[in-house]
Amino acid sequence: MKQHISHESGERALIAAIRSRAGRSGGGGLRLGIGDDCAILRPPAGHEIVVTTDLSLEQVHFRRDWHPPESVGHRCLARGLSDLAAMGSKPLGAFLSIALPPELTIREKGKSWLDRFLDGLLALADQAGVPLAGGDTAQSPSLAARGGMQSGLAAADIVLVGSVKQGRALLRSGARAGDKIYVTGNLGGAAAELLAIGRHPEKFAGAHKMQAGHPHLFPAPRILIASRLASARRIHSAIDVSDGLSTDLAHICEESGVAAEIDAEAIPIHPLALQAELDGWVASALGLALHGGEDYELLFTAAKGVQIPRRVASVEVHAIGQIVARRGRRPSIVLRQRDGKTTALESGGWEHFSAQ
Amino acid sequence: MKQHISHESGERALIAAIRSRAGRSGGGGLRLGIGDDCAILRPPAGHEIVVTTDLSLEQVHFRRDWHPPESVGHRCLARGLSDLAAMGSKPLGAFLSIALPPELTIREKGKSWLDRFLDGLLALADQAGVPLAGGDTAQSPSLAARGGMQSGLAAADIVLVGSVKQGRALLRSGARAGDKIYVTGNLGGAAAELLAIGRHPEKFAGAHKMQAGHPHLFPAPRILIASRLASARRIHSAIDVSDGLSTDLAHICEESGVAAEIDAEAIPIHPLALQAELDGWVASALGLALHGGEDYELLFTAAKGVQIPRRVASVEVHAIGQIVARRGRRPSIVLRQRDGKTTALESGGWEHFSAQ
Repeated sequence: MKQHISHESGERALIAAIRSRAGRSGGGGLRLGIGDDCAILRPPAGHEIVVTTDLSLEQVHFRRDWHPPESVGHRCLARGLSDLAAMGSKPLGAFLSIALPPELTIREKGKSWLDRFLDGLLALADQAGVPLAGGDTAQSPSLAARGGMQSGLAAADIVLVGSVKQGRALLRSGARAGDKIYVTGNLGGAAAELLAIGRHPEKFAGAHKMQAGHPHLFPAPRILIASRLASARRIHSAIDVSDGLSTDLAHICEESGVAAEIDAEAIPIHPLALQAELDGWVASALGLALHGGEDYELLFTAAKGVQIPRRVASVEVHAIGQIVARRGRRPSIVLRQRDGKTTALESGGWEHFSAQ
Repeated sequence: MKQHISHESGERALIAAIRSRAGRSGGGGLRLGIGDDCAILRPPAGHEIVVTTDLSLEQVHFRRDWHPPESVGHRCLARGLSDLAAMGSKPLGAFLSIALPPELTIREKGKSWLDRFLDGLLALADQAGVPLAGGDTAQSPSLAARGGMQSGLAAADIVLVGSVKQGRALLRSGARAGDKIYVTGNLGGAAAELLAIGRHPEKFAGAHKMQAGHPHLFPAPRILIASRLASARRIHSAIDVSDGLSTDLAHICEESGVAAEIDAEAIPIHPLALQAELDGWVASALGLALHGGEDYELLFTAAKGVQIPRRVASVEVHAIGQIVARRGRRPSIVLRQRDGKTTALESGGWEHFSAQ
């Protein structure tokens, strides 16, 4: 943990808050944490290292008036853990680079925004057994605006380093024609909860502890299930559902040079997405499940004959379609509707609230 | 390399520019680069992993009107490489998370700000033999200001992953009473050049290629020299001079539980710092050498009897003092002046231009 603006009190508070709490999460692979030029991690013998970085920017990935700080911290780490899960990797250490405007480090009523951000991040870190091993801090500069100064924005970059047995990483590129396609949990819940937050943010201000039933605010990365699937060596390809099923399955198809057919009937839809349809917020819950992002479920393929349990690590696993050979200019993903008709499934992707 | 605001053209341009160029730097330890959920690195057998992250924020670490984009890219990577050097580690891969306002991805006269930033970063990456293995991108949001919108700020987080033989990492905590203190190259040059840039930024706009003589714009991280010193197993402790000699030596003293005496006469002072004194910009070139930061030289200690060459990897190495036992409340660092008198050396640290 290094320090750049050494004479600013906000910066000192930021560093002190993080250093004092980083030691709480310990892990077997961490040999040297915060306090030197680098952290040292010791991966198990015969393992490779996997690394992912994820930016979280205020107004792009979260809003201070919509997301409790605990949720922002949780979501930062969850995104990185989910990327590790998609490789079948176990986490060795997390690194947090964070830039905050001074007011977010001031303690009011006992806790600052930063304290609560760290509460959320470290609760998930403890649960996942990953130590906060280092990072960097800076004070986010204010901007000159007509008539005064505009407060700077919060920004965090989370880095996850994990390990996986040599050659056993789950890749996007391994899908083969004939594979069945599976997804964990259910889909569309994160997008549905975000719709609800946008309508009534005040109802979600109290959701400050990691808890089930908040697929957007407190998603559960599938580290354990992915690690078990990777150990079983029966998975051909995997990705996490971050941009939405339609986009993430397209990534597998593209990287593997294949196409896919999925069955609308088989898509597991989150209860919050069904409720959003009942309430008339969206035309179709299925649309949220197909295109809504940030569910952080695991999407993977396995050869047809391989037995995939219907539950792994207490999470349901659903078969939703199959991988087929790519043919010329035909669409790479086809959706089989409930009436048997098929339509091309375009990548819908995920539009952040900032663009709405 | 992931994508978050999928429908913004600036974001697409950002990802395309980075993806298209990342492959140019190849390295032996990189098994899987940009294009999956994580990158995969393969450290040599019997090695540990070292990780460092460094934030670079516009208005804090650089200014668009002072720093050519090539310098910003170079400096981002140099900071991380210097941290690896201070551990005696060799780089395996670099990861770049970057948030940019849209105008920095627009190509005018052939190259955008981002193109030139990548020119600077990748030139140094090639020289250091480190592949750009992944990262993340986002569009830096504009801020509402009275009377219009204020463009967002550029921010980059650079992550360096390296490897070092198990147990051979150079730490801050290994200094012992009786050690001699050494520093590579010379000091104060970066601070002196920054003073010059602040006075006449237009004179430095053409410094767009990595070249000697620009200790602030294009510092040279000491990867090779550090790796040789670590292999020789004669170094007790090391740190890089990022916050300034007085601060960084204090870090070694604190982590090692020792004190230090340094000789003013022995401090190698950069010619630009001497020039700044001659020009009357600063009272003392020695002050710049003691307290100016961002020289990215290597500061290390070794037992008294150990032979340290006066040049390593074409860089001069100077003995500047010795480690002594800590005694009660006495100052941890004492400076022996040219006239033989000693004074306590307080950590001067480095105040960024934003605070000036």
